[in-house]
Amino acid sequence: MTTRSSQPALVLLSGGLDSSVLLHLVARRLHDGAVHAISFDYGQRHARELDCARRQAVTVGVTEHRIVDATFFAELVRGGTALVQGGAEVPDLADVPEADRVQPPTYVPNRNMMLLSMAAAHAEASGISDIYYGAQAQDEYGYWDCTNKFLADINAVFALNRRTPVTVHAPLIDQSKADNVRMGLDLGVDFAQTWSCYRGGNSACGTCPTCVERLKAFAAAGMDDPIPYA
Amino acid sequence: MTTRSSQPALVLLSGGLDSSVLLHLVARRLHDGAVHAISFDYGQRHARELDCARRQAVTVGVTEHRIVDATFFAELVRGGTALVQGGAEVPDLADVPEADRVQPPTYVPNRNMMLLSMAAAHAEASGISDIYYGAQAQDEYGYWDCTNKFLADINAVFALNRRTPVTVHAPLIDQSKADNVRMGLDLGVDFAQTWSCYRGGNSACGTCPTCVERLKAFAAAGMDDPIPYA
Repeated sequence: MTTRSSQPALVLLSGGLDSSVLLHLVARRLHDGAVHAISFDYGQRHARELDCARRQAVTVGVTEHRIVDATFFAELVRGGTALVQGGAEVPDLADVPEADRVQPPTYVPNRNMMLLSMAAAHAEASGISDIYYGAQAQDEYGYWDCTNKFLADINAVFALNRRTPVTVHAPLIDQSKADNVRMGLDLGVDFAQTWSCYRGGNSACGTCPTCVERLKAFAAAGMDDPIPYA
Repeated sequence: MTTRSSQPALVLLSGGLDSSVLLHLVARRLHDGAVHAISFDYGQRHARELDCARRQAVTVGVTEHRIVDATFFAELVRGGTALVQGGAEVPDLADVPEADRVQPPTYVPNRNMMLLSMAAAHAEASGISDIYYGAQAQDEYGYWDCTNKFLADINAVFALNRRTPVTVHAPLIDQSKADNVRMGLDLGVDFAQTWSCYRGGNSACGTCPTCVERLKAFAAAGMDDPIPYA
C-alpha cells in the first residue's frame, strides 16, 4: 500500500456499484485529506441512483457532496441514447445485437467527458487537483469513454492548464466488476445502498445490460446481491 | 476557397465578436448543409451577449439555435473566476499584473472543455460531425483552452468514439481579433449586434480586458466600433 495523500480529492459518485467502491477506496485508503463527492442529475432514467449516492457520501463522511442539476443534458442527447428520460427504451442485454455492443443503445453521447469537465472545473476552482472516476474494465467493451486511452488523452488535455492542472485517476480501470465487489466487501461497502439498473423501477429488472453484469459480478464473487430484483 | 461542405455543422455561438464572425463564415462560405448554433447561459455576468447570439442566429437563418440553461456552472466555479455572477470583480486590464496574464482572473476554470463537451454530445446525438468554435490567436496569451494544442488534444479524445466521432474546427484560431473584424466586414456581420464587455452593463465599459482588445481590433481594422461605450 502506498502512503495516503494529504491532498484533497474529488470523487465522481453516481451511486452505482463501481463509484461507491471507489469512494470508499479513496476515503479509506488513498487520501487522508478532505474527500469531496460530486454527483449529476443529467436526466438519467435511473435517477434513484442519486439517493444511493447521498447515502454513500454520508456513510463515508465526505467533506462536501455536490449534486448538480444538469437535467438539460437529457434534452441535448435524447435522440442518441436509451439512458435518459424520454429516450428510446432500454433493451435487455439479450436483445442487443453483437455488432451493436461496440457502442450500445445505453451509451450516452459524450457523457463522461461532459461529467469530467464539470468535475474538473469545480475541482480547479476549489483548489483540488486529484479527481477520481469509477471506470472499470468491463465497460471497455462498449464505451470508448471508459478506457485507459480515454483517460490518458483527457489527462493530456488537462495538463495544458497553466496554473492549476487537475489529474483524473481511475484506480478501478483494470478491475472487473467482480473485483470491485470483492474490494467493496473488504472496504465495508453496503451494496444494498447502490443502484445499477438502467430502467429505474422500484426493483432492479435483472435483464438490462447493467443488471446482467452486476448479477454476474456478485455470482463470481460468491455473494448474493442484496438489492431487490423483479 | 475550398468547396463548401454539404454536411450539417454546429457552431458554438456566444454572441461575441469572434463567434458571430465564425457563424457567418460557416454558413456563408464553409457549409451548404444545415447550420445549427448552440449557446450557453452558464451564469456569465455578460448574459446580454445571449441576446446578440439570438439576433445573429436569426440573421444568418440557422436551422436551429439551442440556448442551453447551464447556470449551475457558475455555482461550481464561482471561487475561481471573476467572469460569473457572484464571482470576484472583473478587473480593468490595466490592473491585471503581467505575471497573472498567463491565466487571468477572467479565465473560467475549464469552461471551454465543458462547453465543447456539451456541444459534442448534442452534435453526436443529432448526427452532426463538424463543430465550430471561435478561438482566436490573441486569446492564447491567457487561455490554455483557446490554443492549437488544446484543439488538437481535444480532437484526439473525440477521435476515440467508435461510431460517431465529431471534430472541432477553429478556423479563426490563427487570426487576430483585428483580422476577425476585417473578415466580419467582408461577410456582412452587424457588429452592433455583438457583445464583448465582461461587466455586463448597458454600455460597454471600455476598460476590462475584452473591451480593450475589442477597441484595439476595431482601431487596427480602421473602423469605428458601433456599440455604445460608457
